[in-house]
Formats: sequence, C-alpha cells, structure tokens
Amino acid sequence: MDRIEGLIESLIVPASSRIVLLVLDGLGDLPHPEHGGATPLEAARTPNLDALAPAAAQGRLLPVAPGVTPGSGPGHLGLFGYDPLTHPVGRGVLEALGAGIALQPGDIAARANFCTRDAAGVVTDRRAGRIPTETCARLVERLQREAVRFEDVEVVLQAGKGHRFVAVLRGPGLGGEVSDADPHKEGKPIPAARPLADGVEHAKTARIVDAFIARAAQVLERESPANAAMMRGLSARPHFPGYHERFGLRAAAVAAYPMYRGVAELAGMDRYIPPSEDAAAAFAEVARVWADHDYVFVHIKGTDMAGEDGDFARKVAVIEEVDAALPRLLALQPDVLCITGDHSTPVMMRAHSWHPVPALVWSRLAFADGLPRFHEKHCRAGSLGTLASKDLIAVLLANAGRLDKFGA
Amino acid sequence: MDRIEGLIESLIVPASSRIVLLVLDGLGDLPHPEHGGATPLEAARTPNLDALAPAAAQGRLLPVAPGVTPGSGPGHLGLFGYDPLTHPVGRGVLEALGAGIALQPGDIAARANFCTRDAAGVVTDRRAGRIPTETCARLVERLQREAVRFEDVEVVLQAGKGHRFVAVLRGPGLGGEVSDADPHKEGKPIPAARPLADGVEHAKTARIVDAFIARAAQVLERESPANAAMMRGLSARPHFPGYHERFGLRAAAVAAYPMYRGVAELAGMDRYIPPSEDAAAAFAEVARVWADHDYVFVHIKGTDMAGEDGDFARKVAVIEEVDAALPRLLALQPDVLCITGDHSTPVMMRAHSWHPVPALVWSRLAFADGLPRFHEKHCRAGSLGTLASKDLIAVLLANAGRLDKFGA
Repeated sequence: MDRIEGLIESLIVPASSRIVLLVLDGLGDLPHPEHGGATPLEAARTPNLDALAPAAAQGRLLPVAPGVTPGSGPGHLGLFGYDPLTHPVGRGVLEALGAGIALQPGDIAARANFCTRDAAGVVTDRRAGRIPTETCARLVERLQREAVRFEDVEVVLQAGKGHRFVAVLRGPGLGGEVSDADPHKEGKPIPAARPLADGVEHAKTARIVDAFIARAAQVLERESPANAAMMRGLSARPHFPGYHERFGLRAAAVAAYPMYRGVAELAGMDRYIPPSEDAAAAFAEVARVWADHDYVFVHIKGTDMAGEDGDFARKVAVIEEVDAALPRLLALQPDVLCITGDHSTPVMMRAHSWHPVPALVWSRLAFADGLPRFHEKHCRAGSLGTLASKDLIAVLLANAGRLDKFGA
Repeated sequence: MDRIEGLIESLIVPASSRIVLLVLDGLGDLPHPEHGGATPLEAARTPNLDALAPAAAQGRLLPVAPGVTPGSGPGHLGLFGYDPLTHPVGRGVLEALGAGIALQPGDIAARANFCTRDAAGVVTDRRAGRIPTETCARLVERLQREAVRFEDVEVVLQAGKGHRFVAVLRGPGLGGEVSDADPHKEGKPIPAARPLADGVEHAKTARIVDAFIARAAQVLERESPANAAMMRGLSARPHFPGYHERFGLRAAAVAAYPMYRGVAELAGMDRYIPPSEDAAAAFAEVARVWADHDYVFVHIKGTDMAGEDGDFARKVAVIEEVDAALPRLLALQPDVLCITGDHSTPVMMRAHSWHPVPALVWSRLAFADGLPRFHEKHCRAGSLGTLASKDLIAVLLANAGRLDKFGA
C-alpha cells in the first residue's frame, strides 16, 4: 500500500451511500480524421449521458503514468484504487483470471503451451505447429489425468486457444519468483525453471515445474507435433487488502468476461455474471445485487473490442447501447456514478494506448461543470482535471460522504 | 534512476521512427500589459506553427516542481527524462560544460576565481577588483604553466569573464564531495577544502584543491590585485545511463552553445554545432545528421536571451525566425515533433521563472486538440495537460511507437 492509499483508509467513515463505477473498456479514443475529427464518444448519440453531463464533473484518468499504455490488469487495478506500479499482478495470474480459474491463496499460475522438440531435446517449434484448439483440449485432458500431482502439489490445467493452456500449481509452500521454463526461441532445449529469489518456496515451485515438464514430455512422447510443454510467467496470486478492509465497502463486480471478475476478486469484490454481454443485461444484474452492496463495478467489454477491431461505427453503437440502457442504472438512484474506461483503445490504433481516459463523476456534490456533453474534448476542461486512476476511488468516496476531514 | 524511469526503459521496443525535440530556451512567458496582454508566443506571427497546431496536442511542462524556477541544467535534464531532483549536476560541472570543456569520467570540476588577500592571508576582495577578462586570461595561462600537476592529478584551467575561471581536476581516485575553498565573504581567510563524505577519494580531492590554492598564491604573489585563487562548487561529472542504454535511441544534440551540448553529453547524445545561431542553420544541421539518429534535440538560445534582456520585440522576432525556418524541419518528416522550452523566461521578469512551459506534441497519434494556435493560453486547455518535464520523454516515445504495453 502506498502512502496515499493509507491516507484514504484512515479517513473512512460509515455511510449508507452507494457508488457505481461503470467501466466502458477502452473508452478513450482520438479525434478521427475520417469522421470529421470526432471521437466515437463524441459522435455517438447519447441523450441520457447528455442529460447527466451538465450536473457532473468531468476529467481525465491517467491509468499508470504519462505515455504508458496499460494492459487490462493494471488498467482496472488503478480504477479500483491500487497503484498498478506497486501492485504487480503476474502474467500467469492474469492469464488464469482471464481463463476463469478461481485462484486460491498460495496458488502459482503460469502461461503454458505445447511445443515440438527433436530427439536431442531441442525445441524446433515453440507453438507445436499451432495445433488446433480441439487438439489442445484433448492433450490438456490427458495431461490433467497423467501429470496431476508432484510431491504435495496439485497441477490444475485449463486448455486455451491453439497451443496455449494455463497451469495452476496448488499446494503448500510455493513461491512465485521462478524463471520461465521456456527457451523463448527455437533451436534451444527447454531450460530448467530457476528460483529468482531466496527462499525454499521458490525452489519448490521450480522443482515442481521441472517435474511437470519432464512428466508431460513422457505423456506426450508419441504425440506429434505437440510432444512437450513449456511454462512461463509464473506468478503467485497476490494478496491485496480488499475493499471491505480498506474502505468498509461491500463491493460487487458485474462483468461478463472472467478477466475482469478476476481482477475484481483481487480487490475482494463479490462477482456476478450478467445473463448476456449487453448493457441492459449488465444493469439488470446490478439491480439484482443492489440491496446487498455499497459499491458496484460494472464492466462493458464491447467498446474495447470495437476499438481493437478499428471499427468506429461499432464503438459508437456500443456507446449508444450503453446510453440507451442508462435509465435502468439511474433508476437505482446511486449516490455517486462514475463513467469511465480502464484505458483508451483508439479506433485509429486498433490497440490499447497511453492517452488519458475520459471520466465523468456525477453526484449531488460533484462540481457541476455545466458541460453540454461527455467526451474526450470536454473532459480536458472539466473540474476533475487529470487524475491518476488510482486516485479516483478517493474522489468517489468523498462524493459518497464516506471520507472524514484530514486534520483539524 | 527513479521507479518511473525504470518503468519506461523496461517497455522499450525497437522502431524506426524519429523524434525531434525543439527547445526554444526560456520560451514560456506572461501576458504583457504593454502588449495588449499578449505573450511573445501569442504576439508572434507564426503561420507554420499555426498550421501545425490544430493537429497537435498541447499542454504545459513543469520543469522541477510547482513554484520552482529551474536553471538551464535541471531544465534540460527534465526535458531529457532525467528527474532533476534525483540527478543532481554540480555547479562546477555545469560551469565546465558551459565553458565547453569535454569532461571525462572521473573528472572533478570547480568554479574558480581570483581574489585579493592581505599580508595576513585575509580575503579583502573576493573578486580581485573585478579584473578585466584579458588579465584573467593572462593569469590563467600562467597558472596553467606553473600549477599544473599535484600528485598524479592534472589541473586543467579555462579562463572565464572578469575574475572567473573554471578548474578541472583530472586523475585517478578523485571524489566530488568536497567543501568550498572559498570564505564566501570578505574579512576571512580562504578555508581549507574539506571532504564532505567518507572515502579517500574525497580526501584526495580536498588535498589537491588545497595544494593548488597554495601553489596559485605563490605564483600570483607579486600580482595585484589578483594575488590568490579560490574554488567552489566542486563536483564530479555524474554518470547517467545514456539515451542508447535507456531507450535504444541514437540521439543527437544540435546546439550553438556549449552548456546545452554539455548537458546533452550527460545523456549520451552525439553533439553537433550548427554553423550559426539562427534557426535555419540549426535545422540545416539537423538535416545533415538526420540519417544517423532516431532522436534529435535542437536548441535555440535567442528566446531566453531576449527574455533576460526584457526585450519583448526581440523575443517575438526570434520566435518568428524559428517559425519561418520550421518548414526545413518538417521537410525531414519526423514521426514526432515536440516544441517547448526548458523553462519560462518572462520578459517582465528578465529572468528564469517557475511558470509552466508551453509544449506542443505533433504526431499522427497525438490527440488533435483542434486549437487554432500554439501559445501559453491555449496550452492550458490542451490534451497533454500539465506534465512534469521528466515525463515528456515517455509521451514522445509512446507517440513514436517505441513503448510496449504495461502488463497484460
């Protein structure tokens, strides 16, 4: 916990107010030259957002640091009030969360994949000829039967796409500081996993990884081309103080995609899966869990996917769909409503970017900026200014009447 | 290296893009009441900048911290991405760099000057009656012949203006943590230099300084009024990881004045002297070195000098001259162009100031702010927001496609 986080926690006072954090994944965008210099948020017809805007405070969020493009993990950790720079989440853990694996305390997660080795043990294809996903599923199933336990550690596998799968090591005394059992290029043997820090827990993990890889090679001996397996990004499920401990909030996450529920789990939120991916379904799920929570995080994935696909019209359509469903959310009468993104995914870039993310905070006490609409251009002039994402939670708590005065 | 700097370095990916950082020294200014409340940048006729502005992102740079006025060293270190607060450059080193002395690793540099001592060894005039520069040159030449070597250390001198000169101690095992051999006021003897930290290297430097000052007094015994010498601001040439190591950039500095080439040298840039001080000459030099570099820093001094002289019309003229030459720079088709200053030098103040510095970043992916011109007033509303100067490099690298995503 950094200094600022400790500060906010020390100021928490009880209240009965409710906060909604509505995240449109990858919301931020750039003025698009082929659309009259408008951003998707600007081009969208958003009567409900427009009605909200004048009474709200607008600003921009900086997810990690100037110029730094965040992945989804750091992007959401920031929004949840955890500095992504001091709350690292390993690659393997994010992969496992994204695969919907419920990680338990002490679990070590890894990205794994099948590969092809020659008779001398040299990796000749790191992707095993990009085997079909069905082959991957069959091989993972075999491994899950025949390479399941080493010492007192259980290895839990889940097939992914093509040659990829996720491995979770579950057992006592495991550490996450272990090098990759992956040569990272063809023409070399799979290296042994090495502990990267002192402590028997890291050595134990390295030992289990090597035993798994040796056993996997035996099991896969007669397979072709996927006759071996590798692991990388080994990391321990981190332990962060959760929302209840930090802020006294009963927090919920409503997200259709497992990765976002996974990151929310790291913050100690209850997780709910809406019946479908659209905003109306998500908001209906919020309504369902409303009575038991003080804080609800709602995740909408479509904006990011449209941005990644370079599809301006679809990004506009997703925003308009969220806007159309918005009255359902407003009907719950949240005391504080924040609408923002975890990062920008500009249509022009077809990728996440470093650009600050538009944010709107509505509450009875948010500074009413009087801006006619909510989008990237108005956000530059809003009263929230440019905030580090990790500081957003303090603003939401303050608007919710949940923060005491600092000093006399 | 602070945490953020380590972060950026860990995200570097190769690219073939090119970045230009055009620094108009002391660019920032204040609305001038005698010029209709316009700043020089606002009053200048800048058709080329005006053409660039709408497609660029504008903002303001904070060189050190709010309210803190930077010297040229910290101002440029910040722009180069070195936090001036954690990358101190000693006074002696800056003086030596400004004098055009090529400092070598291990060198200790000092500001030195002639003074007048009475028979009892008391300093009666710290400036030796402000002897003419020609006298200084003659005395330095004498010292350079007769007070040149102490133990295994060579003392390299260079005459400055009036009573001032620069001394560089060059030899093995020297440290830079040494107190001034300067009483800082009249009526006291020249104190012995004292090591300010443990370690034989600092003690050795103190010993050499004292030996030099004793020998200088012998050499100057019959001179009047400059019959002794003093040293202050002793400091070691710092070692910062350079641009190639940090960012994988082949970096060049084009600057007419030695101080700026010196600071660029600390960042590991290749240095080039344009044939004259005007912008056209500087940009021609950029074109000459263009093929071999990924990043070019161009320094224009005239804006600062005009500010220091309180000359509004001249500051405007220098800006207009840069604008007129700008097409030469644009013809090189840099992928990222940043135009800014190292600090503000308001005409009304005739001095450096703490005011944030206007900055413009143009690239295909910079947020097109749509602002009609580039100046201090529009900068307040720009999408770059207010950035610490040290964070600028990350934004430039991001715009250049040279930064990977942080986290998955």
